[in-house]
Amino acid sequence: MKASWIAGVALFASSGLAQTFQRLGGCPELGCIFPPDQADFLAGQYFDIRLEVHSPVNGSEAREGEPDPNFTFTVARKGRRNRPQKATDFFKVKEPELEEWDFTWFEDLFAKDAGKPSLVKVTSKAYRRVALFKPGEYEATLTYYDGQKTTATWTVRDLAKVRKTKNVVMFIGDGMTTNMITAARLIAHRSVNGKYQTKMQMDKFPVLGHQMTHSLDSFITDSANSATSLYTGHKTTVNALGVYVDSSKSPYDDPKVETIAEIFRRVYPKAGVGIVSTAFLADATPGALTAHTRDRGQYGHVIDSYLQGMTNYSWTEWDGPDVLFGGGAENFLSSGSHKGQDYYKLFQEKGYSVSWNSSALSQAPNNTKALGVFSISNMATWLDRNVYPDNLKDEENYPDGSGKDAEDQPGLKDMTIKAIDILHTRSKKQGWFLMAEAAHIDKQMHALDYDRALGELLDLDDTIRATVEKLKALCQLDNTLILVTADHGHGFDVMGSVDTKYLNEQEDDREKRNAIGTYWNSGLSQYTVQTDTSLRYSEGVHFPTNWDPRYTLFQGVTANPDRRENFQVHKDGPRTPAVELEKGSKNYYADYKDAVSGFVTNGTLPVAEAQGVHSLTDVPVFAMGPCQEEFGGVYNSIDIFFSIAKCLNLGTDKAQRK
Amino acid sequence: MKASWIAGVALFASSGLAQTFQRLGGCPELGCIFPPDQADFLAGQYFDIRLEVHSPVNGSEAREGEPDPNFTFTVARKGRRNRPQKATDFFKVKEPELEEWDFTWFEDLFAKDAGKPSLVKVTSKAYRRVALFKPGEYEATLTYYDGQKTTATWTVRDLAKVRKTKNVVMFIGDGMTTNMITAARLIAHRSVNGKYQTKMQMDKFPVLGHQMTHSLDSFITDSANSATSLYTGHKTTVNALGVYVDSSKSPYDDPKVETIAEIFRRVYPKAGVGIVSTAFLADATPGALTAHTRDRGQYGHVIDSYLQGMTNYSWTEWDGPDVLFGGGAENFLSSGSHKGQDYYKLFQEKGYSVSWNSSALSQAPNNTKALGVFSISNMATWLDRNVYPDNLKDEENYPDGSGKDAEDQPGLKDMTIKAIDILHTRSKKQGWFLMAEAAHIDKQMHALDYDRALGELLDLDDTIRATVEKLKALCQLDNTLILVTADHGHGFDVMGSVDTKYLNEQEDDREKRNAIGTYWNSGLSQYTVQTDTSLRYSEGVHFPTNWDPRYTLFQGVTANPDRRENFQVHKDGPRTPAVELEKGSKNYYADYKDAVSGFVTNGTLPVAEAQGVHSLTDVPVFAMGPCQEEFGGVYNSIDIFFSIAKCLNLGTDKAQRK
Repeated sequence: MKASWIAGVALFASSGLAQTFQRLGGCPELGCIFPPDQADFLAGQYFDIRLEVHSPVNGSEAREGEPDPNFTFTVARKGRRNRPQKATDFFKVKEPELEEWDFTWFEDLFAKDAGKPSLVKVTSKAYRRVALFKPGEYEATLTYYDGQKTTATWTVRDLAKVRKTKNVVMFIGDGMTTNMITAARLIAHRSVNGKYQTKMQMDKFPVLGHQMTHSLDSFITDSANSATSLYTGHKTTVNALGVYVDSSKSPYDDPKVETIAEIFRRVYPKAGVGIVSTAFLADATPGALTAHTRDRGQYGHVIDSYLQGMTNYSWTEWDGPDVLFGGGAENFLSSGSHKGQDYYKLFQEKGYSVSWNSSALSQAPNNTKALGVFSISNMATWLDRNVYPDNLKDEENYPDGSGKDAEDQPGLKDMTIKAIDILHTRSKKQGWFLMAEAAHIDKQMHALDYDRALGELLDLDDTIRATVEKLKALCQLDNTLILVTADHGHGFDVMGSVDTKYLNEQEDDREKRNAIGTYWNSGLSQYTVQTDTSLRYSEGVHFPTNWDPRYTLFQGVTANPDRRENFQVHKDGPRTPAVELEKGSKNYYADYKDAVSGFVTNGTLPVAEAQGVHSLTDVPVFAMGPCQEEFGGVYNSIDIFFSIAKCLNLGTDKAQRK
Repeated sequence: MKASWIAGVALFASSGLAQTFQRLGGCPELGCIFPPDQADFLAGQYFDIRLEVHSPVNGSEAREGEPDPNFTFTVARKGRRNRPQKATDFFKVKEPELEEWDFTWFEDLFAKDAGKPSLVKVTSKAYRRVALFKPGEYEATLTYYDGQKTTATWTVRDLAKVRKTKNVVMFIGDGMTTNMITAARLIAHRSVNGKYQTKMQMDKFPVLGHQMTHSLDSFITDSANSATSLYTGHKTTVNALGVYVDSSKSPYDDPKVETIAEIFRRVYPKAGVGIVSTAFLADATPGALTAHTRDRGQYGHVIDSYLQGMTNYSWTEWDGPDVLFGGGAENFLSSGSHKGQDYYKLFQEKGYSVSWNSSALSQAPNNTKALGVFSISNMATWLDRNVYPDNLKDEENYPDGSGKDAEDQPGLKDMTIKAIDILHTRSKKQGWFLMAEAAHIDKQMHALDYDRALGELLDLDDTIRATVEKLKALCQLDNTLILVTADHGHGFDVMGSVDTKYLNEQEDDREKRNAIGTYWNSGLSQYTVQTDTSLRYSEGVHFPTNWDPRYTLFQGVTANPDRRENFQVHKDGPRTPAVELEKGSKNYYADYKDAVSGFVTNGTLPVAEAQGVHSLTDVPVFAMGPCQEEFGGVYNSIDIFFSIAKCLNLGTDKAQRK
């Protein structure tokens, strides 16, 4: 018995691949190729190549001498008689100039505590805007230090033969997991004896998949990195938008990969592109469709990329989305924008209508490009807009920067339906791609504000329902692939119920915990019991009828900062679970005011974390419409890009529209 | 804006349905019908009917007078000209005798603390072993208290016309979620630049679904209740096996529903049935295939039901599974069995081979029925059997009761493959159904022993891989539907990595938390880096190569007892996170010895809980083989029963083999 699994072939080789602290992700050797080994490409997809040769001066990898300035690089399509060619010959580009720089990194926490970084000297070159056209495997080889070699196997996936869908709507529930969908269903859909009487719209989708969200160089991703995977088919590093991360200082020179929006517009010049989000528009999930920077914090760069695409380095032509709706006015106003420009004016000059509130949005013309910016910072949550509207007051967040309150904000549904109207009007012939993001699922989960997060998830579901109806009304349902997915998870679940009356009346923290009911004592959802008789939903629209029942959900996440929990809805606005006792100390403790009647639980996260964090779990993919069959089963996040590209037939076997 | 969702049709009615503490689950009114409203049936499936009329003496529902002894009950098939008939006429059964009893319940935690139960008097009748044959809707009506009515709508689902699969293998990863699968993949499969170089077997399955696991009367289930849903198509109450729960005292008189094993054998008398589990065999997941009791703790009853089916009340004939492999010798030995019988002897007399260890199992004949009991209590975990085998010593758990150690235990894979050999030999013609449970995923998650739980999940995956190979070798792969699912979840996820060296060297609890790396600092999995060069896996067999790396997973669940965490594998055997300071106090604190170098975190669970608890999340369903298309998308747990029954064509439109 015991011996049986210790026999046979070794499948695992000891290597430097599994590093936690890394000199440079994607580059375990001293020679680096980006895109790295195992990268996949759509035929004809533009990308940059970055080569680096490292010479570590100190630390565990220290070596004598300078980094090699005379490294060489070849590419070969695998197969008979395909000899490696110099990259300049293979791609027919000029030899780029040699670049040189230094960088430092910490090898572990001890080195960090001691302030002892490792220094690395670098020589580098970058080949800009190249593409591979023939499906198959390629071998890229970097040769340095007198014959040392780093090789990367690149795969160009097979070309699709037919365009299977005219339009694509891609809903991203940021941070949304199966666990959250289950909880949202429980609070919004009435069940009789274990049988739900109504269905969530996403539960009606015929095809279900799971996607793996991990990064190139870490198993937990952020939204920049994961959006890049979904939109480009290339996994990269935390914080990176549309680029692989090199070791140079500039956040603008990293090797780019072409995104689904850029490719769609390149291949079908009259195709429509829409971007909708409840986040600030410079945020990662919308931004990754057009921006190319290793640093998602380059908000000015992101907004500028919506307007005119990449301005540094040659790249694909891109003249902006047809629709751009969301929050984040601060990056459009000259007070806080890239180079102090008035982006409302710049978009207007380019022919965009500009809307600042829900009423203006509904009246915006459907035949021109449209910009809608509805608040400073993130837009309001569904719960605040609809149940606790007083929380929209005194925010001084009107998008014109006047200091008024943005009280008339549209919801995800209003923005999405308007976007479809515009895209359908403008791109009847070549079709359109729309990405709509429910951003607050993630943002409120970070704040441990489970109620607001689930409200947002239900708003997403209602938006999907309205989208199906809208497409039906436009006779486009049979032409439109609808995808609903997420970019990563949070470790959320529901374990039972809480008798909040009992909890509030106990004095002792340990006694308060006895208010919690698990298994049979979880009972049934009281969120669907109607107490407010004035409350009515439209047909098919499902939200809780009572957000503040006596028996609430015993819910939580798998990693927390210190916090108090009373398991009740936060009526005064989004939650702040942890605070610094001394400002700037990066030492967070439970926020007493956040849940006065609750009990304190210390967290497991580093004490510098004020919020919850992302998690590893695969996230669901729901698909409906032409080409839905591509999205069943379990796959990598990058496969979603390749499947969409296949459904839209975006691969090209020769250069187009240079 | 704000008004838009407060207009339209009311979809939610105020009712007593959403109770947390309940007089009787499935019975919010004073008249109770079991099976209750919304129940679904397979055509021809046997079931009992239990009627109750309640008269609450005190408490919030108190009324004057005795419970009605003269209630009446009718059933009608919905449709033109189908008048309600007395149940005796409708089912052609005798009128049962009136039963009477009292019971008490607590209306909330305050009543419980005060020791003030509510008393209810009951009149009742039970109609035993009836069935509905024609697909369609039925209305069952209980009339009591001079015209008060409780109605139940029952649905008999459409009959299948064709048997689509010959065999079914149903793998149950007890407590297994998508989140756990993601974590298991991370520690056992090597990834290069974000691309896994190998796949889990379940990830290769073509069809993916999600099932909702909630109970009839609580949104969190246990394994008894959920197994009943999966095997009978009827949701019931926590702790119930193959029955709805009535309010009478006896755990044996509750209304039964026929299980997939019983139906399969009734419809195809030579069909094979196999039951395999790494739990003790009287446990809920194996037990629910043949037992009928509201109390999963009736272990003797469960074991007896394997031998001879139901002995009290008339029921379907059932002569035992062909294969029964697992742990739990204590319920077979006369020292602890039902009526002190020697069940080894009883099974042997019925023609079963009996095996007590792995060597005997491999030599057991394939043409006779087989019982294999390999340990007292639960079988050993994969991690203990394979990596820390010293933990199998001094357990005194040999299944003959001799006090020897059960060191030669088979794994789930050995038991499953042997079961297939026997089932294939014995039931070549009419086919077979095998349920194989990986029980320790749940048991170790309860103990917060994430490493052992993930090891068990990987053992399940390896068993599935071996099953596919075995079926291929027997030329049965095209004839066999393979399902992999779970019965409920635990709120588990992975949020990053832990530098255990750093953690162990810090003095202060808050400083220890800084050992945790999230996002980019999670790095890559170090469980796949080979350090022990003597370690080899067979081709395609994937487990971690290093269970004790410096950088471990930062993993956890959403609800805990107080505990210490050091995020390292427990080499001395399964974990005990919380202990009572005073035995029997039901007041649990963190167990210092469980993780000496770790830091303390107080829990959120009631302090009487020593372990983690189940969670709400939908669980995945992976399907491969004939009829796989039935299992895509999102559905209720009971739908799995109906889909299997459809694939095996088990619905019958007339009575068979009484």
